[in-house]
Amino acid sequence: MDDSMDKFFNPRSVAIIGASAAPGKPGNDVLKNIAANDYKGELYLVNPKGGQIMGREVYPTIRDLPEGIDLAVVILPAKLNPQAVRDCAAKGIKAVVLAAGGFSEVDEQGEKLQAELIGAIRETGVRVIGPNTSGHTSTPANFTSTFFPQGRIPKGPVSYIAQTGNFATHTMRYISSAENFGVARVVGLGNKVDVDECDVLQYYAEDPETKAIFVYLESFKDPRRFLDIARTVTRTKPVILLKGGSTSEGARAAVAHTAALASDDRIIDGVLKQAGITRIQRYSHLILAAKALSVMPLPKGNRISFMAPSGAMLVILTDLCRGQWNLEVPAPEPATRKRLQEISPPYIRMRNPVDIWPSAIVHGIEYAYGEAMEAVLKDPNIDAVVPILMITDETGVPDLSFIVALARKYPEKPIYVTFSAQKKHMDAAKDFLEPRGIPTYPLIEEPFEVLSILCRCRGLMERTPNRSEPL
Amino acid sequence: MDDSMDKFFNPRSVAIIGASAAPGKPGNDVLKNIAANDYKGELYLVNPKGGQIMGREVYPTIRDLPEGIDLAVVILPAKLNPQAVRDCAAKGIKAVVLAAGGFSEVDEQGEKLQAELIGAIRETGVRVIGPNTSGHTSTPANFTSTFFPQGRIPKGPVSYIAQTGNFATHTMRYISSAENFGVARVVGLGNKVDVDECDVLQYYAEDPETKAIFVYLESFKDPRRFLDIARTVTRTKPVILLKGGSTSEGARAAVAHTAALASDDRIIDGVLKQAGITRIQRYSHLILAAKALSVMPLPKGNRISFMAPSGAMLVILTDLCRGQWNLEVPAPEPATRKRLQEISPPYIRMRNPVDIWPSAIVHGIEYAYGEAMEAVLKDPNIDAVVPILMITDETGVPDLSFIVALARKYPEKPIYVTFSAQKKHMDAAKDFLEPRGIPTYPLIEEPFEVLSILCRCRGLMERTPNRSEPL
Repeated sequence: MDDSMDKFFNPRSVAIIGASAAPGKPGNDVLKNIAANDYKGELYLVNPKGGQIMGREVYPTIRDLPEGIDLAVVILPAKLNPQAVRDCAAKGIKAVVLAAGGFSEVDEQGEKLQAELIGAIRETGVRVIGPNTSGHTSTPANFTSTFFPQGRIPKGPVSYIAQTGNFATHTMRYISSAENFGVARVVGLGNKVDVDECDVLQYYAEDPETKAIFVYLESFKDPRRFLDIARTVTRTKPVILLKGGSTSEGARAAVAHTAALASDDRIIDGVLKQAGITRIQRYSHLILAAKALSVMPLPKGNRISFMAPSGAMLVILTDLCRGQWNLEVPAPEPATRKRLQEISPPYIRMRNPVDIWPSAIVHGIEYAYGEAMEAVLKDPNIDAVVPILMITDETGVPDLSFIVALARKYPEKPIYVTFSAQKKHMDAAKDFLEPRGIPTYPLIEEPFEVLSILCRCRGLMERTPNRSEPL
Repeated sequence: MDDSMDKFFNPRSVAIIGASAAPGKPGNDVLKNIAANDYKGELYLVNPKGGQIMGREVYPTIRDLPEGIDLAVVILPAKLNPQAVRDCAAKGIKAVVLAAGGFSEVDEQGEKLQAELIGAIRETGVRVIGPNTSGHTSTPANFTSTFFPQGRIPKGPVSYIAQTGNFATHTMRYISSAENFGVARVVGLGNKVDVDECDVLQYYAEDPETKAIFVYLESFKDPRRFLDIARTVTRTKPVILLKGGSTSEGARAAVAHTAALASDDRIIDGVLKQAGITRIQRYSHLILAAKALSVMPLPKGNRISFMAPSGAMLVILTDLCRGQWNLEVPAPEPATRKRLQEISPPYIRMRNPVDIWPSAIVHGIEYAYGEAMEAVLKDPNIDAVVPILMITDETGVPDLSFIVALARKYPEKPIYVTFSAQKKHMDAAKDFLEPRGIPTYPLIEEPFEVLSILCRCRGLMERTPNRSEPL
């Protein structure tokens, strides 16, 4: 474990340089976030005004701080950042987060300032996240340096690397308010003058709290090193990456965003695959796939079963599984087919996918879906199961505990739930199932898209060559 | 206007054959649906038990009914259907809906029964929807023959043709409970022994209540006629089609579902395009695109603008617009760029897509998004606008009336809203905007996917050749 990187993620003590008593200021919001996440380490505040903030003594300058603090979060105007780094180093602080924007991402003046900052980092040897970062989060340490209001950030096994401030801001708010899953670590890379995606990926590789890694990047600072690390980490942990700037238009937007230069996208595609990295195209999939991986295992293979209350859904989703998602919908074993037939009125020939409506009408939703799901979960030819639940006022509202019980009984096979239902029942089912470890998706195609990504991920992880490839 | 078809959609009088007093029975649910939709015509009930149902006199047999009824909805066991058709014809009824399943979609016995039914239809000349249909709906006539509980079906300008019972059942429940738009006409085709997609498409073509047509089909009964009708209707109305069974696996599922035989999918693709029909692949898009078309015009072209509170979203969505969706994100006119720059802090170079966060932080959400949207809506190079709204507790909750006002001021340019926000604010924005004619989509890629479909639709409608092509 890289000791200096660990100071970012497990700081025993933190100094907030630019702490503020004024509500709505970043230097105040960061304190609220730290309190909301129940940080247990020592906290030191610095502000030239001195006095007290939230009942804590405030040190007027960095030089007044005690020695031996693990981490400093610097929320000061850009031009004060190089000196702040030197002052922190002089106090023995080895890890610094620099929040301010106003460097090479804005203008020539900013570029000069960034050069000065890089000089200060080289002189002192401190590790720096940023500048122009929205901060980082480490829920195992109950800590965040984010200065956008977050409230308590839920804990989970998924970690993010994001070359965008949006992750620590609205996307985390969306995740915690809408998608019911938590994170282990999040780093907004900012301008990555020092700590870059390689350092963070290496840390996540060795991090026991991180089970899966999601990455949004607009540029690779050291592609060879990134791929070398990825080659190793993808043997055991999924690495799912969204690369911004894959078209020339998107690349122009990326230059505006983080001053990144786009490389040849096809070359990137190939080398990412060789390193076992699963590439995705959609921002939403950074969230929807993480939700699945945060509670469900990676599917062992791409052979799925699903049960729908509609013949049209059976047909359309089978088309998409084969035509777009590289998912198999295999014939069930004879024993599975026999069981499926037993639970259905005889006029439906039960197969995979499962036409569940007649059985649900006759036997009720819990029995029909429960028995059909168990039959296919038992089947060695099936790797994952997606029930499309029908729930309306008239079908009756089932007790969905049976799905939770099945997920516990067959822990190696992912179950994702979707719906053909009234909205209020979809919402209630989500609110019941997600905290109990069953991901749900409102649109019927979404769980299959996620399975498609994760099956590709499984395949890439298994094919990862045990050697370095020239870039 | 085909007079016999019009009896299905504008019946002045309806007989329910198999009406039932027992709650939960299809013959009872259909009566509740008719009452919930406030049908104003004459209603006659038939049940061998006679007596009264819901305060209405019940006729023991069809033969006891008065002459001159427009439409019969027959909810009887399959084997009684051929005679019911004959009896209806004898009473002068020219349009019949047959709900029962149990025909060629189940077994050989059913095939024989279907042959007998076809004989009865040929003998009598009545028009029949079904059998094995979940019914049809005509909101301009306040009428539905659906026997699945529906409640009041909201009115709107979109009509559906669905070769699946699911539409009249769960999908309509999903639409009316989750997507806030309404329909004009819906027909579940069932086994289409008589009325088929051609008849319905022809009716919708001439129907002033139908502005856009969505179709789910698993087979074409008379492809040449369908394409001939489509060629004409797509000159003025969008026709968007999802064809089930486009892969051999899906086709097998389709055979199980409606006994349809799949044709060569690539041939279908070509001829649909020639007829100006827009093909889609996802069931959800039957809903999400209809939501957009029910309140917004078809985009005039594929040149869009969007504003995002995140550089990453600007980059990723620009990539997807070019790489996957065939949408242009063109440079704005000089006047537009000038206006965008005026509303933003100077350190952001404003362009298209619009980096809106700095302006929103400084000026507030309403001003920043409102002014930016108006600037691009005025721009002759922009055909449609997608604001990605950031709304969290801390940004403040904006009054979204400005979006409604802009939609009214620029009625020729579609506006679809999506979010980077906390869930509760997304839900509140949807509840405010959708009833006021602004469609919203929870995931940021969804409005662009819909625009992509509708721009393709526009292109196909403009290219429609004025001649018949051999199939």
